[in-house]
Amino acid sequence: MNLYDMELSGNCYKIRLFCALLGLNYESVPVNLLKGQPKTADFLAVNPRGQVPVLDDAGTVVWDSMAILVYLARKYGNEQWLPTEPEPLARVMQWLAVSENELLYGLARARAVVRFNRPWDLAACQEMGRSGLAVLDAHLQRNRWLAADQPTIADIACYPYVALAPEGGMALNGFRSVEKWIARMQALPGYIAMPGL
Amino acid sequence: MNLYDMELSGNCYKIRLFCALLGLNYESVPVNLLKGQPKTADFLAVNPRGQVPVLDDAGTVVWDSMAILVYLARKYGNEQWLPTEPEPLARVMQWLAVSENELLYGLARARAVVRFNRPWDLAACQEMGRSGLAVLDAHLQRNRWLAADQPTIADIACYPYVALAPEGGMALNGFRSVEKWIARMQALPGYIAMPGL
Repeated sequence: MNLYDMELSGNCYKIRLFCALLGLNYESVPVNLLKGQPKTADFLAVNPRGQVPVLDDAGTVVWDSMAILVYLARKYGNEQWLPTEPEPLARVMQWLAVSENELLYGLARARAVVRFNRPWDLAACQEMGRSGLAVLDAHLQRNRWLAADQPTIADIACYPYVALAPEGGMALNGFRSVEKWIARMQALPGYIAMPGL
Repeated sequence: MNLYDMELSGNCYKIRLFCALLGLNYESVPVNLLKGQPKTADFLAVNPRGQVPVLDDAGTVVWDSMAILVYLARKYGNEQWLPTEPEPLARVMQWLAVSENELLYGLARARAVVRFNRPWDLAACQEMGRSGLAVLDAHLQRNRWLAADQPTIADIACYPYVALAPEGGMALNGFRSVEKWIARMQALPGYIAMPGL
């Protein structure tokens, strides 16, 4: 199994973390997509969107972090990580949607402005990120995990850019239940970190 | 089944369209979230994110268009709309991810700037939208549907903001395979339109 990977990408880290929790081995293929690096034709042939992460599992190529989490959960995980019944499955999907919206276009973009000089409006990204953190915090006041009584891929998908929020100038200390959930994530058997965590 | 709904929302239309294709009946609960309209406490109790669509299926409340599509497909659809096996499921998820990224933050935001005076950078949104259209078009040159040999919820999720792209100042006539796919969508038995289509 090959993972096209970039160390500082929170989206790539979602896959590295999930593989670690599942005990899956893979070969890392480093890709540099930071501003100014051209996307090679070889890489665009693997992923026409030109983004990491991409997984190549013995010839089955899956791009996009959300799609890869779903693929790995269904193929190598069990019902815990991604339920099959309509309502529990929808609970996971709701928080995957939050991870793709408030967290990616709020928190992750704020971090990209601060760390990688990307051109987005920092205040607007932070405001969007804060709305995501508020929704997460309210939910985690009454729940230990986002979508079920145990961790699912929803937690894996939301965790990186939440935990990295301080790199985008967003303090987490107003979100006490989020902080406790971060501690629970870091206590999972097999947990690995990434730079900045 | 109640659908908290806004007529001009492409995300709400995804659900209306899928219900029409599945032959599902629902009661529409109109919500006005256009700029300047306060979000009521009643509505925030239903969806803490304060967004439409929200589905209430006999007390099972699901928010977020992507989560609702997955819920309806698993509960009332069949394997066609959302496969269960890892690889075909991942194919659907990949295009759901495109719908949540290039299409929502590119095409839908460009439309929101033009139609609803939202404050985003029109040129940047259009550029992101164009990259999504290019990926879709290249894929649809070799495939009739996005994720399988027949339509799935990936097509439902991607269709609205692609078809509405001209409202955001994006011509589709450079994307011939996308145009043909739009025509195939509109020919599906049970298809319904929305304002602007």
